Amino acid sequence: MPAPLTLDRLNALPAAGFVAALGEVFEHAPWVAEAAAAGRPYATVAALHDGMMQAVRQAAPERRSGLIAGHPELGSRVRRAELTGHSQAEQGALGLDRLSAAEFERFARLNAAYREKFGFPFIVCVRRHTRDSILVQFERRLGHDIAAEREQALAEIGLIARLRLVGLVEGPGKPATAGRLSTHVLDMLAGRPAAGVKIALHEIGSSARGLLAEAVSNADGRTDPPLIAGEPLRIGTYELTFDVGEYFSRQPAQTPPRHPEVRAQRAPEDERPGPSPVEDRLRRAPQGDGSGFLDVVPIRFAIAEPEGHYHVPLLVTPWGYTTYRGS
Amino acid sequence: MPAPLTLDRLNALPAAGFVAALGEVFEHAPWVAEAAAAGRPYATVAALHDGMMQAVRQAAPERRSGLIAGHPELGSRVRRAELTGHSQAEQGALGLDRLSAAEFERFARLNAAYREKFGFPFIVCVRRHTRDSILVQFERRLGHDIAAEREQALAEIGLIARLRLVGLVEGPGKPATAGRLSTHVLDMLAGRPAAGVKIALHEIGSSARGLLAEAVSNADGRTDPPLIAGEPLRIGTYELTFDVGEYFSRQPAQTPPRHPEVRAQRAPEDERPGPSPVEDRLRRAPQGDGSGFLDVVPIRFAIAEPEGHYHVPLLVTPWGYTTYRGS
Amino acid sequence: MPAPLTLDRLNALPAAGFVAALGEVFEHAPWVAEAAAAGRPYATVAALHDGMMQAVRQAAPERRSGLIAGHPELGSRVRRAELTGHSQAEQGALGLDRLSAAEFERFARLNAAYREKFGFPFIVCVRRHTRDSILVQFERRLGHDIAAEREQALAEIGLIARLRLVGLVEGPGKPATAGRLSTHVLDMLAGRPAAGVKIALHEIGSSARGLLAEAVSNADGRTDPPLIAGEPLRIGTYELTFDVGEYFSRQPAQTPPRHPEVRAQRAPEDERPGPSPVEDRLRRAPQGDGSGFLDVVPIRFAIAEPEGHYHVPLLVTPWGYTTYRGS
Amino acid sequence: MPAPLTLDRLNALPAAGFVAALGEVFEHAPWVAEAAAAGRPYATVAALHDGMMQAVRQAAPERRSGLIAGHPELGSRVRRAELTGHSQAEQGALGLDRLSAAEFERFARLNAAYREKFGFPFIVCVRRHTRDSILVQFERRLGHDIAAEREQALAEIGLIARLRLVGLVEGPGKPATAGRLSTHVLDMLAGRPAAGVKIALHEIGSSARGLLAEAVSNADGRTDPPLIAGEPLRIGTYELTFDVGEYFSRQPAQTPPRHPEVRAQRAPEDERPGPSPVEDRLRRAPQGDGSGFLDVVPIRFAIAEPEGHYHVPLLVTPWGYTTYRGS
Repeated sequence: MPAPLTLDRLNALPAAGFVAALGEVFEHAPWVAEAAAAGRPYATVAALHDGMMQAVRQAAPERRSGLIAGHPELGSRVRRAELTGHSQAEQGALGLDRLSAAEFERFARLNAAYREKFGFPFIVCVRRHTRDSILVQFERRLGHDIAAEREQALAEIGLIARLRLVGLVEGPGKPATAGRLSTHVLDMLAGRPAAGVKIALHEIGSSARGLLAEAVSNADGRTDPPLIAGEPLRIGTYELTFDVGEYFSRQPAQTPPRHPEVRAQRAPEDERPGPSPVEDRLRRAPQGDGSGFLDVVPIRFAIAEPEGHYHVPLLVTPWGYTTYRGS
Repeated sequence: MPAPLTLDRLNALPAAGFVAALGEVFEHAPWVAEAAAAGRPYATVAALHDGMMQAVRQAAPERRSGLIAGHPELGSRVRRAELTGHSQAEQGALGLDRLSAAEFERFARLNAAYREKFGFPFIVCVRRHTRDSILVQFERRLGHDIAAEREQALAEIGLIARLRLVGLVEGPGKPATAGRLSTHVLDMLAGRPAAGVKIALHEIGSSARGLLAEAVSNADGRTDPPLIAGEPLRIGTYELTFDVGEYFSRQPAQTPPRHPEVRAQRAPEDERPGPSPVEDRLRRAPQGDGSGFLDVVPIRFAIAEPEGHYHVPLLVTPWGYTTYRGS
Repeated sequence: MPAPLTLDRLNALPAAGFVAALGEVFEHAPWVAEAAAAGRPYATVAALHDGMMQAVRQAAPERRSGLIAGHPELGSRVRRAELTGHSQAEQGALGLDRLSAAEFERFARLNAAYREKFGFPFIVCVRRHTRDSILVQFERRLGHDIAAEREQALAEIGLIARLRLVGLVEGPGKPATAGRLSTHVLDMLAGRPAAGVKIALHEIGSSARGLLAEAVSNADGRTDPPLIAGEPLRIGTYELTFDVGEYFSRQPAQTPPRHPEVRAQRAPEDERPGPSPVEDRLRRAPQGDGSGFLDVVPIRFAIAEPEGHYHVPLLVTPWGYTTYRGS
Repeated sequence: MPAPLTLDRLNALPAAGFVAALGEVFEHAPWVAEAAAAGRPYATVAALHDGMMQAVRQAAPERRSGLIAGHPELGSRVRRAELTGHSQAEQGALGLDRLSAAEFERFARLNAAYREKFGFPFIVCVRRHTRDSILVQFERRLGHDIAAEREQALAEIGLIARLRLVGLVEGPGKPATAGRLSTHVLDMLAGRPAAGVKIALHEIGSSARGLLAEAVSNADGRTDPPLIAGEPLRIGTYELTFDVGEYFSRQPAQTPPRHPEVRAQRAPEDERPGPSPVEDRLRRAPQGDGSGFLDVVPIRFAIAEPEGHYHVPLLVTPWGYTTYRGS
């Protein structure tokens, strides 16, 4: 990806330079940049994006149709040469250029059905999706009518362009295109952040990309940096795992806090009758697997908002835990 | 309260005996029992109650009005002699016969306004209420129209009669008039029920009856018997307190469970820089109050269903807890 | 397995009949039953077991060694004919008679090393274990000294005999050989048990047996019957899954409870500045995957006490949950 | 309190000016400042404090005794004129100058006993304490031996001086004398921060100062600013209350999130038999108190570390909650 341009420079360039710089933001449609050049100067990157989208909406219908038609099919291997570098990178990050035969077949079938019904290719902002969520959306959008799909295609083109602009242009007022996924582990035995817990993040699902991140919690019980930041979260299903068994195995014995006003009283006896000697010996027979209850704690969740902040904490003892979507 | 009658005996009695036995179930209205006598035999106590209520609904309107009019005013000290023994016991348990001057004044004002608007006394099944919830209901019902209030008065009379029948008559198929309030304390440090925790239940509110129950959790982390059982729960606001500070002070040091497969690895160092020697000495200056965080844990909740089962567990470490309405 | 004998009948039988009935309780060692016959009558099944174990401990050392030596090797396919019916059933339930080549190889290697070191076969009460926990225990016990292992072998023989007796003999005072695994789902949106949640229990691990139970929660939020009951829980690692996404999808909209005393006041405005129109349209672009957070909730835990009661509840909203080891 | 001095200015002043500026940092002991003047320049406020403490520790024993003896008695009304302005402000903030007769009596008795045993006044850094924790500490320190108490008195003098210096001197490297108490409310019905929840903080205890702070949670579910910040937290017992009943009453109905893959299946029926018509009508009789469970949620906790960070979140639905000491 080229070095970022500054917004100042873009505002000052001759129109041809502006188009040269931003011509690929809309796939195979440098005319969008040409139209937007007249709206300069733009005060923010968001305003630049709005200007370009306005150019799309005010263009003649044939041009808009051409813009839509110019997008590549997803998961199509044969036409690599026709993709912009942007499209190649976007599809490649999701492995859409390395599909198995069965997956390729599935995409080919969906692409054909979509084009048959609507007359243009299926467009989705790939960087906001996992392969699973693309397939879910593909099936669902096949059920729409053509007006809704045309609107949806333009919205997705807007999302794609927004991400490309944020990557290309340096300047104030960037639109919020990045999400964040973070976690926090609280050791409820000791009443403090749990440091040194091994954490892993997997994407799960039928065609998932597997392990996405590994980290060890720091002294504040967090990962440094967040598990995902600086890019959209891909819509999909994830699993965080926390190796709390290993963590607690390393902890020293905890003396519960003493309150000074403990009255001089006898503790009530535990009234359960003790086991018989034979029972007791049997019970003490070495077990195969330690005495723990929790070892690796999995938390499985869906991400539905690519630009959202997902904070998924774990409050844990060796015997139970609480988790929730924080923010 | 007289010894329970059996349903069999009631089914076999001559009508006059039946009326003698159940004549006070409806306040000053033995005619209800007279009419219901004809419907015998009753297979269950619930069917007996239904039979009596049907007699009420099929009676001439003047008789129904008379039934309503025959009920005592709440909190009225002057007419004690006119109450049935049932009413005296019911109102006395709530202290409605021992109101302060200000409370008496408030009840007198509400009674007058209610009688002025509707022409009959305010009727409520006292055994399902606290003083607070009676006052809330009193104010609210003053806003109703007369048809709704007449219906409500009969519903309350039905509730009163149901409780009286359940207390008087022994037999199958008793309607469910009792609620239950119970608790359960789990020690999440040790992963087992917390035995020996001091628990108290208070009614709270502007005119609350104070301490209702005290108990110490048994080996199963429960109270034995439940905090309230065998009677309706009074609609109102309650606070349970758990002396977990004292409990944890008595617990031995806990070694977190060891997992056998702990790998021979170095634990990550805690990376926070240590305090300077002076800071450290200052920090170790004895504190006034132990090092604990939780001491007495209060849980405040409303009871809205007198015949409901409220299970209010506490999952607790010295550093946090979870509670919820269980069942 | 033959129909249960009664303890009364066993107490009354001639000694030969007693031995015929219980001769296989100790593998290839009818002499244990012979010695125990003299101790009759036994008041309880537990006393009968104690009597048989005492016979073992008081036998000549050579007999005890013979008892140990008479046990089959685990996972050994070649000597099927030499196993008692008990042993065949016990090993078969765990698939030890259907090992893959690699697993067979591993067991063979461990069996050889164990016999080389101790001179007798590795004995473990198979019905209290998963394949994983047997392997963990096998490796660990190889590190013991011979006295500890002889003691351990006799303890395991006692556990095996106890289970066989409980299956064979009907009578009072059976020792507690069964564990229980149960769950409970609370819907914290609605404040009541979650009915209709699909629940599955899997054994997980390197050589796990997969799906163990499937159930749908009943009106009380529990499974009916418990997930495991009436037999020992096998030491190992398990995963419970709860299909809460599907459950919440079926629930009607929840109106949060209204408190009557809500004061006539203006709610504080949400002060976050709204998105720009373009941002807003982008944000509303249909997502691929609904708006949920939790879908299938997994809880992974170890069972270490075969005769323990494990209650693993789930308190859940669409946005978070709490779980713990209850009892 | 005078305008802050800068450390630069203090480093540059003639010794007499330095002493004039800092003479009261140690109660009635300008000689500490005199001795510390020679150690200039100080790079940080913490180093200045260390320098002054070193002067104390290196002084002749009689001087140190004089320093201790020069401190005022706590809660003593008669000698107001002898207190420095610092001491007056510190004791006044805790109401030690406005004790009831009984409290005055108790302090007088403790002061006398302490002076009788040790020969010098009881010294404690009042700004780190509540009245309750001072009394707890007073009783406990009466049990110490004289060497420990002399050490403790000097440590407390160090804490007092540290706070005075931080208030007086502007400069780099201030020691951390401030604690922080904050909260966070998560609405687990809606899966987002709860905005608009009324929160109150009370000090509780036998001689507590009552309401300390009131706030309404902002759009992030937090209070702005924190409940306490910029000063030491006083050791003692506190109660946070959250008016969640009022909050949930204002919330719209929540539709649980829909997952797109909801299979076309019939939901299992709720199998509880329905109530009879009479029962049902009774059950629907208007209740006195809404249908809620939680209304005002109290969280009671102890603060033991005046310079600590206490984060006390609430994860709440109308039916339950979780709280814990976060950080």
